[in-house]
Amino acid sequence: MPELRKDPIIDRWVIIAVERGRRPHDFVVESEPPSGAFCPFCPGNESKTPPEIAQWGRPANEPPNTPGWNVRVVPNKFPALTHEGALDRQGLGMFDQMNGIGAHEVVIESPRHDWDFASATPEETRDILGAYVARVAALREDERFVYTLVFRNIGTVAGASLAHPHSQIISVPIIPGQVKEHLDAARAYYMQKTRCVFCDVLRQELSMHDRVVEEDEHFVVLSPFAARFPFQLQIYPRRHSHDFTLMTPPEIEALGRTLSRSLHRIRETLGNPAYNMMVQSAPHEHSRPGHPEYWGTLPQDYHWHIDILPRLTKIAGFEWGTGFYINPISPESATEYLREATV
Amino acid sequence: MPELRKDPIIDRWVIIAVERGRRPHDFVVESEPPSGAFCPFCPGNESKTPPEIAQWGRPANEPPNTPGWNVRVVPNKFPALTHEGALDRQGLGMFDQMNGIGAHEVVIESPRHDWDFASATPEETRDILGAYVARVAALREDERFVYTLVFRNIGTVAGASLAHPHSQIISVPIIPGQVKEHLDAARAYYMQKTRCVFCDVLRQELSMHDRVVEEDEHFVVLSPFAARFPFQLQIYPRRHSHDFTLMTPPEIEALGRTLSRSLHRIRETLGNPAYNMMVQSAPHEHSRPGHPEYWGTLPQDYHWHIDILPRLTKIAGFEWGTGFYINPISPESATEYLREATV
Repeated sequence: MPELRKDPIIDRWVIIAVERGRRPHDFVVESEPPSGAFCPFCPGNESKTPPEIAQWGRPANEPPNTPGWNVRVVPNKFPALTHEGALDRQGLGMFDQMNGIGAHEVVIESPRHDWDFASATPEETRDILGAYVARVAALREDERFVYTLVFRNIGTVAGASLAHPHSQIISVPIIPGQVKEHLDAARAYYMQKTRCVFCDVLRQELSMHDRVVEEDEHFVVLSPFAARFPFQLQIYPRRHSHDFTLMTPPEIEALGRTLSRSLHRIRETLGNPAYNMMVQSAPHEHSRPGHPEYWGTLPQDYHWHIDILPRLTKIAGFEWGTGFYINPISPESATEYLREATV
Repeated sequence: MPELRKDPIIDRWVIIAVERGRRPHDFVVESEPPSGAFCPFCPGNESKTPPEIAQWGRPANEPPNTPGWNVRVVPNKFPALTHEGALDRQGLGMFDQMNGIGAHEVVIESPRHDWDFASATPEETRDILGAYVARVAALREDERFVYTLVFRNIGTVAGASLAHPHSQIISVPIIPGQVKEHLDAARAYYMQKTRCVFCDVLRQELSMHDRVVEEDEHFVVLSPFAARFPFQLQIYPRRHSHDFTLMTPPEIEALGRTLSRSLHRIRETLGNPAYNMMVQSAPHEHSRPGHPEYWGTLPQDYHWHIDILPRLTKIAGFEWGTGFYINPISPESATEYLREATV
């Protein structure tokens, strides 16, 4: 059973996800899965994943866990957290721990092993983003979970262990410290100014226009002012909203287009770099006063967005020791290069 | 000129260290420097580094920047921050920036290219730790800097760009947000209990003894309770002290032994993994009330220590999105493996 442990000094939890029998030298192996190797996510191999939770594309009268799907959601076979059980918080002297209850799902984004989000069709992105929205909405019904993250790891350097394109969804029973820090800062700004800090950033970026890679009616793509990573991008909805599951169908369509174009710009400009993508959205709203993880959602003060981090630089001692990152290219030059890419 | 920029949402600065003419595809190249390639840190090549700041081993009557040294300190040839100039803080609409003033030095740890800290002699570690102490003490005299970090990156995955063993020292004009978070938490604990939280953790770890890898009269080596990385180690001095430059000569000798043994345990247990090592010590004490980065050092509440992070796992979307890490081995098993290593 995985375990959550809290750092005794600061508000930071860690998942201790012990895989049985893993010995020290198993950690050092670190190789790209060979192309042509067996892929559990390819159609025909549905029995090699845990039974599917949802799918898009296969007619409802056909049996589950068979080919015919366009997008398929399954539990992670090696989950970081366990779905079964009640939360159990414990002290251990001055330390705090909790059993590792949570959800860990995989969104298989296409039946095609060599599919790429950067050249996706509108129908494909609609189904994938639809899967994100549907699964996050469903996971929120579980009162044990208070925060859910949707993310994609592309490339070994970015932590992908399988090459077949997929996203992951993790629900956790606490609001992570780093998320709280952003929520608290946005709340404090809102309380002082009665304006959303993200809306203010967006307004300033649109008027300066030095870091705006592209924009349309619904979304703005920025290379953020204090980017920690070279060519880092953020995608913000123009319409203030704290929760990405509240997107309208035209917004979902527009986001698919924008996301695919942004990933295409990165591919064009940088070759095929590894990257991480995260959907940053508000915590679950069912966490109420009295709940140990109560945060008290104010829909006005948080603004959901997507972060894309190309993994071009190494995280080294200085960054680990201080949290202070060194970015070797200015967001303004990164923006110029990314704007020039043909999409 | 490098630039410091503050995240508009949270208290987090970034160094934008633009290297002129670096184009997008230059970022993607990522290879181990070939063994046998020219090494600017090897004896005989002293003219290939900026002129030395200090050295240990060469008689004082011999010319500087010539062979004969055991440890040599030089400015970083590609510094993340510039040493020359006055601090200049500016606003840019709602954004905050500052010119990138700081120090960035390199401690070349041995004339031997294939030298390894894990098998160092007591004389070698004494000179290296002596260099750390001397340089940090000197950098503190500069009133522009308020925080200094000593760190080592070993292996390409951990961010090392040269294989010749070296450490780095960076001084910055702000107290980084992550450092402040630890200082604040330690201060709050001290104010409530009139005890150092690190001393309390140490006491509990020594009495439980599940995560103590080794201990002697002066130092204790732990795999921390909420380790974010597999086989992460922390070295704490038993004697409460907020500042590692206040070590006594016997403590410096003991630390050299302990550090070298710990790195040896990691090498024995895991092969030759990449790792980062950081010396976490209190901010400079000259930062006084009225100084914009005043923190107000209380020597009682912070406890310096060393962190060693073997780089065996990838940082992926979940970690970036939440700050919540997944560690696939419990610190208790890591401790058992590391204890068994022959040293």
